[in-house]
Amino acid sequence: MARLVSVSDPADPRLADYVRLRDVNLRKSLEAEHGLFVAEGEKVIRRAAGAGHPARSFLMARRWAGPLADVLDATDAPVYVADDATLEAVAGFQVHRGALASMERLPLPAVDDVVADARRIVVCEDIVDHTNIGAIFRCAAALGVDAAVLAPRCADPLYRRSVKVSMGAVFALPYARMADWHGGLAALRGHGFQLLALTPAADAVPLDDVAPAERRALLLGAEGDGLSSRWLREADAAVRIPMGETALARGVDSLNVVAAAAIACYALTRD
Amino acid sequence: MARLVSVSDPADPRLADYVRLRDVNLRKSLEAEHGLFVAEGEKVIRRAAGAGHPARSFLMARRWAGPLADVLDATDAPVYVADDATLEAVAGFQVHRGALASMERLPLPAVDDVVADARRIVVCEDIVDHTNIGAIFRCAAALGVDAAVLAPRCADPLYRRSVKVSMGAVFALPYARMADWHGGLAALRGHGFQLLALTPAADAVPLDDVAPAERRALLLGAEGDGLSSRWLREADAAVRIPMGETALARGVDSLNVVAAAAIACYALTRD
Repeated sequence: MARLVSVSDPADPRLADYVRLRDVNLRKSLEAEHGLFVAEGEKVIRRAAGAGHPARSFLMARRWAGPLADVLDATDAPVYVADDATLEAVAGFQVHRGALASMERLPLPAVDDVVADARRIVVCEDIVDHTNIGAIFRCAAALGVDAAVLAPRCADPLYRRSVKVSMGAVFALPYARMADWHGGLAALRGHGFQLLALTPAADAVPLDDVAPAERRALLLGAEGDGLSSRWLREADAAVRIPMGETALARGVDSLNVVAAAAIACYALTRD
Repeated sequence: MARLVSVSDPADPRLADYVRLRDVNLRKSLEAEHGLFVAEGEKVIRRAAGAGHPARSFLMARRWAGPLADVLDATDAPVYVADDATLEAVAGFQVHRGALASMERLPLPAVDDVVADARRIVVCEDIVDHTNIGAIFRCAAALGVDAAVLAPRCADPLYRRSVKVSMGAVFALPYARMADWHGGLAALRGHGFQLLALTPAADAVPLDDVAPAERRALLLGAEGDGLSSRWLREADAAVRIPMGETALARGVDSLNVVAAAAIACYALTRD
């Protein structure tokens, strides 16, 4: 049986894992130092636990202890229960989903291991926005991409907001992080991947016309800045999503990175 | 020449159009009462003006008066200039883009007029999220959809956040609002549109297998709840985005509405 522990002091040191969840800088250093991440909401907590992440503790409104009983009973981690006001005072915002878990990170696999059996991968360069990285993981996992590889500066998929937006897909799609941005693409080419750089550039190859390939890597850059010139140069081809005939006349010449990634993942996993 | 008027009192009644821009309920009633909307940032302000919306006034940091000089000079509307602290005190948040415009709404065209020459349209049922409606307009405009039709309860494309997320596509894609949710689809069928209801349901037709059609309407429902049972029943076909073979095994069984709309617009405008 789970140990339910009532708490009411927002400054209780046992709740230190959950403080100021919207303070990005604080959270980055706190989570790195302790090797933890925070899962929010029943569904995401279940997925994180199901993916093998050990729980350090839980913090929730009492009403969630019942629905999550099987997850709570499977660990020795303490379950702190608090009223909504205390939850808000600790987390720094109104915790609509009512349940939080502090989970242990697991060692990330090496890039070579993650791509070993993959046919279709996404490679995220400097996607620093947590919402975007979460949404890209959700799309990639849903559309049958086999794995993701992240450049060193790409945002953390286990940041609370990434996890939430991904609906837990960050636990479903295997991923690894390149140690070396400079040589990272050469390593993937060494595995036989066709490297396709997604860009809005008018002279890129339309998605429909991309040459067939046994192994394919879709390179995604940040909203706005796009891929670095180095990665664009190293790619086997620059590919673009064909815009409607009327789009340019309308002055609408691009998609956001998540919509573009969704379409590209869809088109490139059809064969 | 534009009339630049320095302001420093956040309670200045001349700034009433710009108050508390994140207070959704206040803004809805204020904007409806005065027939206005707020455009944010140089690019969006240009697009709104270019689409023929008369300006009521502008409110900006002085540094934006130069880059926007041509837009400001083309109207008699007053240009209020303020420091960043005043801007923040009026708007209720830090106005990163530094320039706001209060613009007049124009009468919406009738549904019949908007779809008269359209081959591909999106029809949004109860998409109440302003971010989602803005993102859907951006995708639809970029991918060559000809027009949008909104159900009575669908969110306002001219709400500040919708406009911003759309990157101004709400001014590029013609749209109209159904007066009648109940009979709205029958009217579109009367125009000869094939009505395709996008859904994650496993028994829906995969996008790749949809029958060809001269005129096509893609029906989109809200994140989570999806389309109403009435609209699903009235559609000619329910269509789904094929998920990857591994997706279900991973427990990832859906896309967010924007990613799904992007893929469907892409696939259904290819022919």
